[in-house]
Amino acid sequence: MSSAPLLLTDLYQLTMLEAYLDQGMSEDAVFEFFVRKLPPGRNFLIAAGLEQTLEFLETLRLSDGESEWLVSCGRFSDAFLAYLSELRFTGTVHAMPEGTIFFADEPILSVTAPIPEAQLIESRIINLLQFQTLIASKAARSVLAAPGKNLVDFGLRRAHGAEAALLAARASFLAGFDGTATVLAGQRFDIPLFGTVAHSFILAHDSESEALENFARSYGESVTLLIDTFDTEAGARKVVDLAPRLAADGISILAVRIDSGDLAAHARKVRAILDEGGLRTTMIFASGSLDEISVRDLLAAGAPIDGFGIGSRLDTSADAPYLDCAYKLTEYASRGRRKQSEGKATLPGRKQVFRRHDADESMLGDYIGLHDDRLPGTPLLECVMRNGRRSSPPETLQTIRGRTADQLARLPPALRDLDTADPYPVTVAPRLAALAARVDKATDQLA
Amino acid sequence: MSSAPLLLTDLYQLTMLEAYLDQGMSEDAVFEFFVRKLPPGRNFLIAAGLEQTLEFLETLRLSDGESEWLVSCGRFSDAFLAYLSELRFTGTVHAMPEGTIFFADEPILSVTAPIPEAQLIESRIINLLQFQTLIASKAARSVLAAPGKNLVDFGLRRAHGAEAALLAARASFLAGFDGTATVLAGQRFDIPLFGTVAHSFILAHDSESEALENFARSYGESVTLLIDTFDTEAGARKVVDLAPRLAADGISILAVRIDSGDLAAHARKVRAILDEGGLRTTMIFASGSLDEISVRDLLAAGAPIDGFGIGSRLDTSADAPYLDCAYKLTEYASRGRRKQSEGKATLPGRKQVFRRHDADESMLGDYIGLHDDRLPGTPLLECVMRNGRRSSPPETLQTIRGRTADQLARLPPALRDLDTADPYPVTVAPRLAALAARVDKATDQLA
Repeated sequence: MSSAPLLLTDLYQLTMLEAYLDQGMSEDAVFEFFVRKLPPGRNFLIAAGLEQTLEFLETLRLSDGESEWLVSCGRFSDAFLAYLSELRFTGTVHAMPEGTIFFADEPILSVTAPIPEAQLIESRIINLLQFQTLIASKAARSVLAAPGKNLVDFGLRRAHGAEAALLAARASFLAGFDGTATVLAGQRFDIPLFGTVAHSFILAHDSESEALENFARSYGESVTLLIDTFDTEAGARKVVDLAPRLAADGISILAVRIDSGDLAAHARKVRAILDEGGLRTTMIFASGSLDEISVRDLLAAGAPIDGFGIGSRLDTSADAPYLDCAYKLTEYASRGRRKQSEGKATLPGRKQVFRRHDADESMLGDYIGLHDDRLPGTPLLECVMRNGRRSSPPETLQTIRGRTADQLARLPPALRDLDTADPYPVTVAPRLAALAARVDKATDQLA
Repeated sequence: MSSAPLLLTDLYQLTMLEAYLDQGMSEDAVFEFFVRKLPPGRNFLIAAGLEQTLEFLETLRLSDGESEWLVSCGRFSDAFLAYLSELRFTGTVHAMPEGTIFFADEPILSVTAPIPEAQLIESRIINLLQFQTLIASKAARSVLAAPGKNLVDFGLRRAHGAEAALLAARASFLAGFDGTATVLAGQRFDIPLFGTVAHSFILAHDSESEALENFARSYGESVTLLIDTFDTEAGARKVVDLAPRLAADGISILAVRIDSGDLAAHARKVRAILDEGGLRTTMIFASGSLDEISVRDLLAAGAPIDGFGIGSRLDTSADAPYLDCAYKLTEYASRGRRKQSEGKATLPGRKQVFRRHDADESMLGDYIGLHDDRLPGTPLLECVMRNGRRSSPPETLQTIRGRTADQLARLPPALRDLDTADPYPVTVAPRLAALAARVDKATDQLA
C-alpha cells in the first residue's frame, strides 16, 4: 500500500532533479523531518509512519506506465528520463522508532543520500510521516483521557480517502486504541475489529424489538445493540425484555450503543434500566461526534460509559488537521546548510536528540545536538536503513503499541493533561548553536 | 484508484449483511447521501466525487485474497461468504452532477438497490463523496476570492495520505483552480501541472545567484524562481541581474515565488524592483500557509500578487476538516423510513431537489420534494446508473469544471462572500412533509 508510484511527488522535485543532474550535483545531502511547532492544544507528539516510509524507500522506482507518460509530456530530457528509470533509493536513514514522544524542532527522521534521491522523496515522506504522527498524537490524548476504557476508531467514513482511513486505524491503534471498525485495516495490519449495528438495520424492520432480536440471533454471542433509533430508554427496556430469550439460546448482550442526545444523561438512565433488568455486565458504548475533550468531560461527569467509538474528529484530527512540519536540507557535500526565511529558519547539520530521565524514568528534558555529540541522556534516533536496506526487520504493531504505552507512562504529569501545559524543556546544545552561527556567517558572505 | 477493496468498509456492514441474508431481507432500499448542516464558514457546498463513486460501484467485488482472509477470521458463515463472493452492485443511482451547488438536507446521491448491496457500500460512498465535496467547496472559496488569479494546489505533503492528495488535486481543479503540483494527479486526471523550485536547491549551492541561474538554465523557458531563501528583496535584485544573461539564451523569467514573511509588503517591494529592472511581465507568485481568507486580504490590501500556491489548508479543509454528512435509509420495501434520534432525524422517501432561478439565471431557492413531485424549478438529481451500469460515459473534468464555473456565476451575491451570509432558502415541499409525519405516526405505533 505504501509503495506509492514514484510520480506521487511535486513537480518541482523532478525539475530540481533534472537540474542536479545537469549540474553534476550528486554529493551526499542530509535532509531532516521535524515539526516547526506543536499545534495548539498539543503538549507532545508521537512519531508514527516510519514503517510506511521505509516500505516506500525500499520499493521506490519508476513504473513503465509512468515512464511512458513522462515521455509523452515532452517536458524532460531523454538523459533525465533514463536516469529516473534507473533511480533507486540507496541512502541511509536514522529515525526515532515509532511510538516515540517528541517535540518541536526535534528531527524524527534524518536521510543521508545523494542529493537527487534525498530530494525526490520529500513529498511522500512528509505525506506519510505527518499524517500518522498527527493521528497517533491525537489518539494518544483520548488514551490518556479514558484509561481502562474501550476505544475504537470509527473514522473510515470521514477520513480523507482510503489510505487516510487505513493509516488512521494503524496510528490510533499504535497510540493505544483497542481496535477499529475498518475491516481492511484489520486485514492489512492485524488490528482487532469492532462493530455494532446501524440505524438502517433497525429502520428496515417493522419493529425495533424484532430488528434487535434478528440482529442478535444472526450475530451470535456477545452482541452489541444500538438503542437510540427512536427513544434511547425505550430501546434499553426492549433489550432487557429480549435478554432472557437470547440467553436461552446462548447469546449474551455484550453492550448497548448510544449515538445521540445527552450521552451522560442517557447513559445513567440506561445503566439503571440494564441493572434493574439484571444486565449488570452489559456495557454501555457511546459514539457520535466524540473527541478526547468530550470523552474526558463525560467521564468527569461520572457517565457510566465503558467504551467510545471515535470517528470524524480522530481521523481528521479535527482541531489540528495538519502539522507545521518540514523535511529540510541541513547539510550538503559535508557542509551545514540552513535557510534564513523569516519565521522559517532551520537548524543546520545532521542531528541527534538526547533525552534525560529522572530516577523514576520520568522525562526531564531533551537536548538537540549534532549527531556526533556526546550529551547527557539517551539518543533517540537510530539507524534504521543503510544503503537502501533496512537495518532490521519491520517492528510489529504490538511492539510499537507497547513502546507508546511505555513512553506515555514517562510523560511529566503536566503534559498528560488535555489542556495546554508549559512547554517541555528542549535545549539546542552548544556545538549545534555554534554551527548555526557559522553557517549564517558563511552564508552572509556567499549569498 | 477508486476501485477499492470490498473490505474497505465498516465491520458492521458485513455483520448486518449476514443478518439480512439470514432473515431473507433483500427488497429494494433507498439510501440517500446528504449533509446535515453546512460547516461554519460555508455558504454553499459543491457536489464532487461522483465519478469515483460510480467507478467504485462498477468494480465492487471481493478479491480472492479478501475471501481467504475472511475465511481465516472464522467470524462468518460459509453461506454468507459464498454470497459475498458473488455480490455485485446491481442498483440504480440518481445524483447531482459533479460541480452542482447544494445545501443542507438536499440529497446529492440516491441509491436504490437490494438492501444488502445498498448497505455494504455506505462506508466507501461517504468516504468518497464527503472528501471531494469538502475540498471542492473549500477551493471554490479561493476561486471566488481571487478572480483572474493563478491558483495552484500545493497540498500533497500535508494531505492525509496518497488518495487524499490525488483527489484534492481533482476536487480543487474542478472547482476552478488552474492546476496542481502533484505529478501523479496530472497523470491520472490530466490536470495541468505547475512547479517552481525549493529552498533546498538554493541551499545546496554556494551562492543564491548561481543556484537561480543553474535552475533556470536547466528548466528552460518560462521559469519560476524562488527568492526568499535568505532576503526576499535581495533575491529579487539577483533575478533582475540574472535576467539579461538568461534572455540572451532565450530563457524568460515567468514568475518569482515568495514563501515567507509579510507577503503583501514583500510583493510590493519585489514588484518595484522587477519593474525598475525591466521585468514588468514577470509575475509574483505567493505561497506559505495560505487560504482563501489570506488570499482575499492580500488582494484587498492591493498586494501585486498574480498567483497563489495553496496547500495544507486547502487539502485538509483546515477550518472545517469534515462534513456532518450521512448516507441514510429513507425507504425499504416501498415504505418510507426515518430515524428519530435526537438532533439527527432524517427525511423519509426517495427525493428530488428543484431549483428556481430568476430572469438573470441567478439562484432563487430550492424545494426538497419527493422524486415524483412536480414542483417549480429544475430537478437537480439525474439517473447516472441503472442496474449497476452507468447511464452515460464519464464526464471529463473540464466539463465538470465548466459546470462549476457556471454554477458559481448563478450564486446570489451574498453567498459569494467569504463571510457567513443568511441561509439560502431551501423548503421541504408539502408531500414530503406529509410523508415524514405519516412515517412518524406509523413508527410510533409499531416501534
